[in-house]
Amino acid sequence: LAITNEQKNCQWRIARRPKGNVVAEDFLYHEEEIPILQDNEILLRTLYLNLAPVMRMYMSGESIAGEKGLDIGDVIHGRGVAEVIKSNNSNYKPGEILQGQIGWQTFKSTEVTERERFRKINNCGLPFSIGLSTLGMTGLSAYFGLLACGKPKKNETIVVSGAAGGVGSTVIQIAKMIGCRVIGLAGNQAKCDLIKELGCDEAINYRTEDIRQTLSNLCQNGIDIYFDNVGGDILSASLDHLAQNSRIVLCGSISEYLHDKPYGLDNYTKLRRTNSCMQGFFIYNYSAQFDAAEKDLSSWLKERKIKPVEHIYDGFENMPKALSSIYDGGNYGVALSRIRHGLNDDE
Amino acid sequence: LAITNEQKNCQWRIARRPKGNVVAEDFLYHEEEIPILQDNEILLRTLYLNLAPVMRMYMSGESIAGEKGLDIGDVIHGRGVAEVIKSNNSNYKPGEILQGQIGWQTFKSTEVTERERFRKINNCGLPFSIGLSTLGMTGLSAYFGLLACGKPKKNETIVVSGAAGGVGSTVIQIAKMIGCRVIGLAGNQAKCDLIKELGCDEAINYRTEDIRQTLSNLCQNGIDIYFDNVGGDILSASLDHLAQNSRIVLCGSISEYLHDKPYGLDNYTKLRRTNSCMQGFFIYNYSAQFDAAEKDLSSWLKERKIKPVEHIYDGFENMPKALSSIYDGGNYGVALSRIRHGLNDDE
Repeated sequence: LAITNEQKNCQWRIARRPKGNVVAEDFLYHEEEIPILQDNEILLRTLYLNLAPVMRMYMSGESIAGEKGLDIGDVIHGRGVAEVIKSNNSNYKPGEILQGQIGWQTFKSTEVTERERFRKINNCGLPFSIGLSTLGMTGLSAYFGLLACGKPKKNETIVVSGAAGGVGSTVIQIAKMIGCRVIGLAGNQAKCDLIKELGCDEAINYRTEDIRQTLSNLCQNGIDIYFDNVGGDILSASLDHLAQNSRIVLCGSISEYLHDKPYGLDNYTKLRRTNSCMQGFFIYNYSAQFDAAEKDLSSWLKERKIKPVEHIYDGFENMPKALSSIYDGGNYGVALSRIRHGLNDDE
Repeated sequence: LAITNEQKNCQWRIARRPKGNVVAEDFLYHEEEIPILQDNEILLRTLYLNLAPVMRMYMSGESIAGEKGLDIGDVIHGRGVAEVIKSNNSNYKPGEILQGQIGWQTFKSTEVTERERFRKINNCGLPFSIGLSTLGMTGLSAYFGLLACGKPKKNETIVVSGAAGGVGSTVIQIAKMIGCRVIGLAGNQAKCDLIKELGCDEAINYRTEDIRQTLSNLCQNGIDIYFDNVGGDILSASLDHLAQNSRIVLCGSISEYLHDKPYGLDNYTKLRRTNSCMQGFFIYNYSAQFDAAEKDLSSWLKERKIKPVEHIYDGFENMPKALSSIYDGGNYGVALSRIRHGLNDDE
């Protein structure tokens, strides 16, 4: 593994709007001078960059979460972990490791503002990639989605879709810690094995099994919490198996990212008989509580009660291919690209 | 108005399964002997019977709320208000007025069991029909749906569909009492006038106005509570105008009663960004708290803070026609049939 050019800021930009899954021609490789530090700025050297389904939407120019959509020629959005190498801000020192919005580039110079926030990462004795997995938006989504929205109680039955994904794999571990019975859904045998290793009591391969029938068999007293990372058919199947006072947490809908037409949920009235609740979830609504959550997650990591699940792709040059592969359902855990070796957080 | 025959128990039974709206041929008029009181039983003389959309489903043989569906020839299900005229149960005395499952008949003899419960009605100085409106399942649905599920706070904006209906008209009045801004939807001008009289700050005629556009204009800071009595399109439009931390109460879906294919809700993911919640509601899940609710509702009635809204059809013989008309959207408030005159609860 080598950075294409350590003397330049290497970038991946949008060459054109993707149609369906992304292909090589949608990306433009670009090199420019490493930015010169301005007043109040910090200069960051990228270590890891996140790979997420939402990135195809960035490339399509869609406005996400109220932000302006990207134009052709823009550097692709993406969160990352980076080392401070120079600083004109007394709150940040060279050598500190931060997590935040970096974009697909190997250096970034930026002011730290309310809008452009960066969080310092304590690695808990683990690689700094945890800044994108357990201690990143992924882990925080699992934490708030499960605890604040799902409100799990000991011995409750929780069904998690996308269970082998970044959020799902963390939800499983926290739910087991609380004493829930956990049923995970994943799309192949290797992922089913993985989620059982993480503690799932049951694993359902949704590509080969009849979901409704299997849920009937496994949840004879109904589902207390359905943690939804996928939307569509599996959400609909869960609505048909709700226990009294159950909670559905709408965290993600990856099944819809590559569809033009949204899924019509035709059994939402199933919420009525059981007094159940479908709770929408958006992680940035919880930002005032991130510090407290990080404290909990860090101690669970240190005590080895939970562990990060990461699918690491190597090399900045491979990012377009890596992004394409995450829509195929082949990856597990948090997908990320390792940009640089040789730091104390390498395995 | 006269009972067809005071010497007999007059009944309406299912002649055949309705197709679409009910017609006269779907009903069978039947007279039989007034039941003879058995041990532990009470004999009831019907005063009012409820008319509700669900009754077409009873006639279709559908299993509702876990109960066995009705057969051809069965007396149609329905709640009513009745006077105890004889009693072999020391808890009930002749002259007391009860509310409960009576069916479409002019007399009923029954044991009072856990399953076949009857509630005594204190008329609060009003006609005993309030046992089917404000103090019946309708008023209780408004009470628990709004207060326990909607959790309204002063100055919040609440949108109520089916606002001129039994539940809706009560929701409006309780919400105004709490200090909410209330926007009601109804299907004609007379109903819009009615709900404004009941306190609605705004009334939307959903048949003549563009619902999405009007909601945009009236709810510039979003909807805090959407109280759904209708389902379908209006629910979907509300999802597009949610405020942060808003609540949708799924109480009814009358728009779906005459459709074969359920509505596909394709924007349910709108719950996510705003951390909103769609809460299913089924009144019998709250039965342990009915007494406390009745106490509140009774004092509000006595203090004239809320009032019943009833659409009274006269005469047992007119019940089939009356039921048919409630699907046309012409009625308002709680629809009910007055079976007998001459009691102290007549207006």
